[in-house]
Amino acid sequence: MFKAKIYVTYKPSVLDPKAEVIKTALGRMAYHNVEDVLYGKYFELTLAGSEAEVRKQVDTICDQLLANVNMETYRFELEPMAEVNA
Amino acid sequence: MFKAKIYVTYKPSVLDPKAEVIKTALGRMAYHNVEDVLYGKYFELTLAGSEAEVRKQVDTICDQLLANVNMETYRFELEPMAEVNA
Repeated sequence: MFKAKIYVTYKPSVLDPKAEVIKTALGRMAYHNVEDVLYGKYFELTLAGSEAEVRKQVDTICDQLLANVNMETYRFELEPMAEVNA
Repeated sequence: MFKAKIYVTYKPSVLDPKAEVIKTALGRMAYHNVEDVLYGKYFELTLAGSEAEVRKQVDTICDQLLANVNMETYRFELEPMAEVNA
């Protein structure tokens, strides 16, 4: 059993309107020391299977479902989870 | 200079409709070994200042801007960044 921690963010070349909104808001709140903002999506999936299977599967899930690969890029980490035996 | 990595997720008691949609889609894609899905927001802010200042500030920014604390919970990590001297 693995927990996959998945980060989906816009490619650097793509304008991120939500990040721009946050930058503007931080300016209004007088936080002028914030130099950069990146906005993305974060997913945690819990999956059963071997590490190799799970890694391949998460890659496919990101590619087909969680990220729009035209505009977004993704990365993920797998963490082994303790099995609970009933 | 610090990079703050911020994770905003729904509180466990709050129904997350986007996570439900992803669960349904994974079922349709025949990924029946996915046991749980968590959907959240991920931010990276780059801030100038001392660690104590930045930590306090990021906490306030999460509280006032990035998270709806009625429904969402947040956590963050600070990573020191190499200063670039011109």
